[in-house]
Amino acid sequence: KMRESVAEVILPGFRFHPTDEELVGFYLRRKIQDKAFPFQVITPLDIYNYDPWELPKLSVCGENAWYFFCLRDHKFRNSLRPNRITKSGFWKATGPDRPISTVETSSCVGLKKTLVFYKGRATKATKTEWVMHEFRLPTIGSSAQGSCEQESWSVCRIFRKRWSPR
Amino acid sequence: KMRESVAEVILPGFRFHPTDEELVGFYLRRKIQDKAFPFQVITPLDIYNYDPWELPKLSVCGENAWYFFCLRDHKFRNSLRPNRITKSGFWKATGPDRPISTVETSSCVGLKKTLVFYKGRATKATKTEWVMHEFRLPTIGSSAQGSCEQESWSVCRIFRKRWSPR
Repeated sequence: KMRESVAEVILPGFRFHPTDEELVGFYLRRKIQDKAFPFQVITPLDIYNYDPWELPKLSVCGENAWYFFCLRDHKFRNSLRPNRITKSGFWKATGPDRPISTVETSSCVGLKKTLVFYKGRATKATKTEWVMHEFRLPTIGSSAQGSCEQESWSVCRIFRKRWSPR
Repeated sequence: KMRESVAEVILPGFRFHPTDEELVGFYLRRKIQDKAFPFQVITPLDIYNYDPWELPKLSVCGENAWYFFCLRDHKFRNSLRPNRITKSGFWKATGPDRPISTVETSSCVGLKKTLVFYKGRATKATKTEWVMHEFRLPTIGSSAQGSCEQESWSVCRIFRKRWSPR
């Protein structure tokens, strides 16, 4: 544990273990709507400025997983391909995006992408145990101006594979 | 999950997963000192009035483990043997009490007893998967009047064995 959790200062024993649905349905939605939080639980950060092992100490809450709001960076203007390169390597997506459904209505409230961190560059890169779950809200309709505001923020869960979040 | 956690109403994603040290060092100590809590996290309850499977719905917080403050009941006046019999069976201690030490000073802040629930009576009883961790503060000095106030309250963690709390 790198830093005392904000909630623990208020009430010991409470730990931040959000479900996928809570991450997108409450935290990401509220962030995109620019609504205030009672206190900062998830740090906004350009995570690609850091290697994954530098991230835990930059997170406010989290024990075995660390959470960040990240403004999606685009490699090329008008391109939707995000830049996922860091100092020591890059994040690579594994498989397609999966929908996050609510328990109650089973409607899609968000999309989840799983990425793995590779150390090194391109073909000489080696897979690491660092994993990212990137969540974003589903696109509402279509926009002629490319990505709309809805798509610009994501919330990320960073963890090491030996520990598996629910 | 039987009931929405109080903390989740305030901030989604926070779950009550206290360590042994937090349970005795914060919650039990505060209860015995009669200090106020920001809101009720641990319900005071005579747990022996219930069978273990009735307890989850009576707890305010908790997902895989449920917490209660319990006034220790004595079978006989001047006896320290507590009454651990319920409607359908009884709780039986397994092994001796273990001390809870702080990470910082490694001094003893509490005692932990593990108990298992048996269904039935005496020799015909069968062991169940229900487990209790009973925590109490260590006795400070000795008291001629039998058990002192320090000993009268305990905090209990009730869970099922297939799930193991940290």
